Amino acid sequence: MRHVPHLYLCGPWESDEIALSEAHRRHLGRVLRLADGAVVSYTDGEGTTGEGELAGAAIRRGIEARVAKPAPEVAVAVAPPSKPNRARFLVEKLAELGVDRLIWLRTRHGEGRPPRPAKAEAWARAALEQSRGAWAVRIDGPVEMEDLPSSSTLWVAERETNPPPSVVNGGILVIGPEAGFAEGEVPHRANRLGLGRRVLRVETAAVVGAAILLDRSGRLSR
Amino acid sequence: MRHVPHLYLCGPWESDEIALSEAHRRHLGRVLRLADGAVVSYTDGEGTTGEGELAGAAIRRGIEARVAKPAPEVAVAVAPPSKPNRARFLVEKLAELGVDRLIWLRTRHGEGRPPRPAKAEAWARAALEQSRGAWAVRIDGPVEMEDLPSSSTLWVAERETNPPPSVVNGGILVIGPEAGFAEGEVPHRANRLGLGRRVLRVETAAVVGAAILLDRSGRLSR
Repeated sequence: MRHVPHLYLCGPWESDEIALSEAHRRHLGRVLRLADGAVVSYTDGEGTTGEGELAGAAIRRGIEARVAKPAPEVAVAVAPPSKPNRARFLVEKLAELGVDRLIWLRTRHGEGRPPRPAKAEAWARAALEQSRGAWAVRIDGPVEMEDLPSSSTLWVAERETNPPPSVVNGGILVIGPEAGFAEGEVPHRANRLGLGRRVLRVETAAVVGAAILLDRSGRLSR
Repeated sequence: MRHVPHLYLCGPWESDEIALSEAHRRHLGRVLRLADGAVVSYTDGEGTTGEGELAGAAIRRGIEARVAKPAPEVAVAVAPPSKPNRARFLVEKLAELGVDRLIWLRTRHGEGRPPRPAKAEAWARAALEQSRGAWAVRIDGPVEMEDLPSSSTLWVAERETNPPPSVVNGGILVIGPEAGFAEGEVPHRANRLGLGRRVLRVETAAVVGAAILLDRSGRLSR
């Protein structure tokens, strides 16, 4: 089976051809050695996907389709890990899994800073392309805990607690900093979500917790 | 709360003091700046843990306890990723989560090679210390698919398949190479396990699939 590259091309697309960035051109031309007319799939990261062809420094648009927004929404609010490569891992893996939102949390004991937005977006887009997704993760923050939308169910990861009920309806997974939350920092309305007895690093808890919330929200079914 | 370091100290321990490696000595002395008498927890990675104290270039053993082997067994058999940093991530995260066995798979389309055993063991031990575990992951292989123990349930990760039943009894998660399995390579007895519609990298599928198998096997409960 021939490999068809999948590109994130920022929308809205207004003509029959979409101009390629220098990075995309280099990747398609020099790395993949594709010639004009080669089939390429593409998405705007907002649910539209298409299959077009390479035409010089652009993609000639072909048949396009809408992919429904996955439901229910699953978000992760996390205190940034202090090491940049761990932050990168976190962004990439959540984007690859198809988490809807990543919200950087400002916490009392947190020592890490969020990566620069342009950097985080670039990691997320590469992961969207790699995983052939149609919906990009939205990255926001940093915000305080009380700024998290009050309409969403909060799931706070905690050691030595049981996993969530077997069927849940999405929500926001909340992961504190390595040093833990301060007293009174976690709102009363939050539910507890156990991820086993091991002490997990911030980025591991985020990815594993997201996988379990997606799974129990029916988001990993065909 | 004071942080008590957790050390993996290779057993069996035969006297009241356990000699420290040069790396441990440096970490405790120069990085953590602990003095003699400081409390240190330790494990042999085979279910024994203890709380002792630093005594020069050794740990003086204190009260010890046995931690039962977590059941049911959850293993991951995986075609090695081709990039070393992705193999490292895979080993670290599975060790951190508490997966019991990691088996490198030799597959027809696989291009990666397993990391050197000494390297993989070092990554796994650091993750065991970090996560404060009592049972180290066992790393084996590379083996062929037909060498996987026939008494274990196999769960082959596949796109566009449903997740496993909500209660499972452990088993071996099988992850193929980026290029997929060859025809006929997956044994008939294998069950399918869906991880959603995204194309996941080998190491992402391994960690997410392991989290879901551990969860559904009751291994993440208190």
